[in-house]
Amino acid sequence: MNPAEWPREVWVNGRIVPRAEAAVSVEDRGFQFGDGLYEVIRAYHGKLFRMDSHMRRLTNGAAFLELGLTPAHVDEIRKVSDDLVQRAGLDDVAVIMFVTRGAASRSHAPPEGMRPTIVIYVRPATTPAPELLRDGIAAITVTDSRWGHVNVKSLALQPNVLAKRRALRAGAAEAIFIRDGHVTDCTASNPFFVVRGQVKTPPESNYILSGITREAVLDLCRQEGVACVEVGVLDTDLPRVDEAFLTGTSDEITPVVKIDGHVIGGGTPGPITQRLAAAFRQATRG
Amino acid sequence: MNPAEWPREVWVNGRIVPRAEAAVSVEDRGFQFGDGLYEVIRAYHGKLFRMDSHMRRLTNGAAFLELGLTPAHVDEIRKVSDDLVQRAGLDDVAVIMFVTRGAASRSHAPPEGMRPTIVIYVRPATTPAPELLRDGIAAITVTDSRWGHVNVKSLALQPNVLAKRRALRAGAAEAIFIRDGHVTDCTASNPFFVVRGQVKTPPESNYILSGITREAVLDLCRQEGVACVEVGVLDTDLPRVDEAFLTGTSDEITPVVKIDGHVIGGGTPGPITQRLAAAFRQATRG
Repeated sequence: MNPAEWPREVWVNGRIVPRAEAAVSVEDRGFQFGDGLYEVIRAYHGKLFRMDSHMRRLTNGAAFLELGLTPAHVDEIRKVSDDLVQRAGLDDVAVIMFVTRGAASRSHAPPEGMRPTIVIYVRPATTPAPELLRDGIAAITVTDSRWGHVNVKSLALQPNVLAKRRALRAGAAEAIFIRDGHVTDCTASNPFFVVRGQVKTPPESNYILSGITREAVLDLCRQEGVACVEVGVLDTDLPRVDEAFLTGTSDEITPVVKIDGHVIGGGTPGPITQRLAAAFRQATRG
Repeated sequence: MNPAEWPREVWVNGRIVPRAEAAVSVEDRGFQFGDGLYEVIRAYHGKLFRMDSHMRRLTNGAAFLELGLTPAHVDEIRKVSDDLVQRAGLDDVAVIMFVTRGAASRSHAPPEGMRPTIVIYVRPATTPAPELLRDGIAAITVTDSRWGHVNVKSLALQPNVLAKRRALRAGAAEAIFIRDGHVTDCTASNPFFVVRGQVKTPPESNYILSGITREAVLDLCRQEGVACVEVGVLDTDLPRVDEAFLTGTSDEITPVVKIDGHVIGGGTPGPITQRLAAAFRQATRG
């Protein structure tokens, strides 16, 4: 769907405005400092996927940053998100939301008593193309030079933007970040690997953004009886993995068949990846 | 001056709009990704201070990020900045400007052919209070967990915001970042130290934002015949320095008399700090 044909409404701090006019103050701290959070939430058949987990992450991040996000705000975000999904009149949509510290005269130190800026809108969901699921994608590794709190889903995403661009220019679709020899996460997804029948993904820490789809896939492994462990993965392990895949709200489960030019698992999505992808499809699309 | 009484105009992509209405799209990449740059430029007696240096830094940063900032944009930024300073009708003002990659449908990878968003406004200059110059300030050290390209004056400033807040809560005025045992810079200024008559400041690298006032002070040292060297400073050196000061567009030259509770140089601004501060005043205010 062409962006011009998207749902035309954006909710900005309690007002529904046409998308072309939806704006934030030039003094909004989200704009001036990246001082805010975001969430992208998938709806399947009109129902928001793991909304509780998204709201828990948003609430935890806002508490860490002290954004002044109250339970009443979260209730409103839930209600508005549901409403926008219903009004969009589309089957599969994504809700995109931003919560910033609000607008104030520029000063690094946040003034007291600010009111957060909340922006919510809906767009058609981006879903991996069937050929990506069938053939898999290529990824590259990139030195992880992001800040030390990427567990917070901050708006300060410039390093992610640069790494993503670098991946695309290398003919790959995603960049896997490496910090001190360890895999952390990707620019907008979490990496999983399969080694001798066991699924591995790096454990939660301040150096990874713990994705909601990551959580869903860990649950799926338990339900499906697939051995799965959260454990450190070294960059030197990557050439020897049997399978690799990425998880994310937009990527869902996307197989990786090449890392830094090295072919993984014969160059086609492996059996455990395919099994989990089928289980994920079943869980989301019924 | 109360923010309500500020100059009321903001230049946004070629249009002058009232400050209360000055806004950027919720799809601006500055807002959604911190994907942009900023500059804060001081005018003294109506003349922009070291505008060439600011424009060089902005141009270099935009080239690194590939923001699509052309020489014609920079010419316009210069002209608009001058105009806004004249129209403000204030003696000492600061120009605040933002250059982002522009607005587009959300996607980490920047689309091709974007047009940058440029926002420019003026406000009364913040100048260190006389008692700060007389008595000095306290600083704390904070682990530098920012990303690996802080030489780029990026909008992705959330770590700076958190460190600044931490300093204020500790009863200090600024945080000095320490990375791997080395002093880098501060949340919005550069640190200088005096040891046995020699001025020291960390050298330029991807781990420091090289301030325009830092550059001006290095020039002043040469003019004044003050020994000065760009050299690594360890956090373990800090308790033994004879003097310390910060440089920045807003801080100008602000003496530091306490670091992490340790009193520096007897607790009052030292002679070399005072000499450079006087020379800076002379150079800017004549």
